[in-house]
Amino acid sequence: MRVEIWSDIACPWCYIGKARFEKGLESFAHRDDVEVVHRSFELDPGRAKGDVAPVVDMLAAKLGRSREEALAMEEQVASHARSEGLGYRVGDRDHGSTFDIHRLLHLAGKHGRQDELLSLAYRANFAEERSVYDTGTLVELAVEAGLDEAESRAVLADAQAYAEEVRADEREAAELGATGVPFFVLDRRYGVSGGQPAEVFTQALEQAWQGRAITPLGGDAGGAADGRGAACDTEGSCEIPQAGGHS
Amino acid sequence: MRVEIWSDIACPWCYIGKARFEKGLESFAHRDDVEVVHRSFELDPGRAKGDVAPVVDMLAAKLGRSREEALAMEEQVASHARSEGLGYRVGDRDHGSTFDIHRLLHLAGKHGRQDELLSLAYRANFAEERSVYDTGTLVELAVEAGLDEAESRAVLADAQAYAEEVRADEREAAELGATGVPFFVLDRRYGVSGGQPAEVFTQALEQAWQGRAITPLGGDAGGAADGRGAACDTEGSCEIPQAGGHS
Repeated sequence: MRVEIWSDIACPWCYIGKARFEKGLESFAHRDDVEVVHRSFELDPGRAKGDVAPVVDMLAAKLGRSREEALAMEEQVASHARSEGLGYRVGDRDHGSTFDIHRLLHLAGKHGRQDELLSLAYRANFAEERSVYDTGTLVELAVEAGLDEAESRAVLADAQAYAEEVRADEREAAELGATGVPFFVLDRRYGVSGGQPAEVFTQALEQAWQGRAITPLGGDAGGAADGRGAACDTEGSCEIPQAGGHS
Repeated sequence: MRVEIWSDIACPWCYIGKARFEKGLESFAHRDDVEVVHRSFELDPGRAKGDVAPVVDMLAAKLGRSREEALAMEEQVASHARSEGLGYRVGDRDHGSTFDIHRLLHLAGKHGRQDELLSLAYRANFAEERSVYDTGTLVELAVEAGLDEAESRAVLADAQAYAEEVRADEREAAELGATGVPFFVLDRRYGVSGGQPAEVFTQALEQAWQGRAITPLGGDAGGAADGRGAACDTEGSCEIPQAGGHS
């Protein structure tokens, strides 16, 4: 089974939701048959690369609240993070464009290190308040995740590298109806929105596992004159259709 | 949309089915949004690595036919291949274990060259009657497909390299109910068995595209006391659940 998780590094509920999903997965009997793929989603896609500001100021401005109110909101999210055993510092986190991080996560995916890099980036952003909008920090995180330093630098320096992969993920999220993150899609059939409790993920995994039946399409009658359904099986036979017209 | 194709390089209908699927995909309006993944399936999984024999002799022995009858069956399949514009020589093709080829295809997948290698391997096997059970030939094909020669040799020399990936694909095929190949799975929801006519694939792609709706699972009511459904959206808001217990 395949679980795709659309998320943004700037999203606290994605950080919390990842931990809750992993806890839910631990309780799922078929956890070893679950492949997890991380997909890109930018919460602030129009943001320019160099436009970095404290997240509390951004929140206050965007939601029309005072700085104190924004801080209180952050504290509330932080309490949820801490109850999952996650570090969460409040006050000095930066907000900026996450496009480069998503591009780097696609490079990491190519090398099978996506989950490592995402975990390190979340920790840097939320628990350590290191700015993940700084290229030097991103290279450090990439190397920590097991990526090659030169290759990581090259990807970050080339704004086109993996850009199409990021955009394709975002198009797919829109097509699947996601308007926010985290968004979990199980075998492209079931969706779970938000950083729900671990047991919700376990239940969703169980339901998706039960519902994995494939609906057959096309002519499966076999033996048709056009070679329809012709296949080879493990008995060594390659069903030979009747001679005649074929497409 | 994602199409997974289980196939074996030794399977003529997989070779023909790949061409028909590609033709069907060409006629599908959303073809640029289709990702194709090739999955491993061995038709003769018990076969020892060095056990290579002419396919006509294998067919005759396995099906209890004469060599002439086996040749006639091959000629019949060949006519289907040729009508798709595919080369197909009859008589000298080898049969053997395809495990190494599948391992190499997983390496190619890691580098985004899986389709290239599979096409080259099919052509070598069916159109050129080059033995794909020979390590030297596999390395040549890997290099032609754009893989690194040393890395390809190293994977072929290490029987464990990508072995688990091959077996995981095969377990998944069994779980999805596949008993033969080619087996096409669209978004883990719809299945097409066999090398069907191109228009069957176009129709299946269209039906799968229409049926892409995701069923939501879990508590989506929002605002629950336990942070259920908490998410961030593109409006800049990270919905803050009511204070209270959470998992």
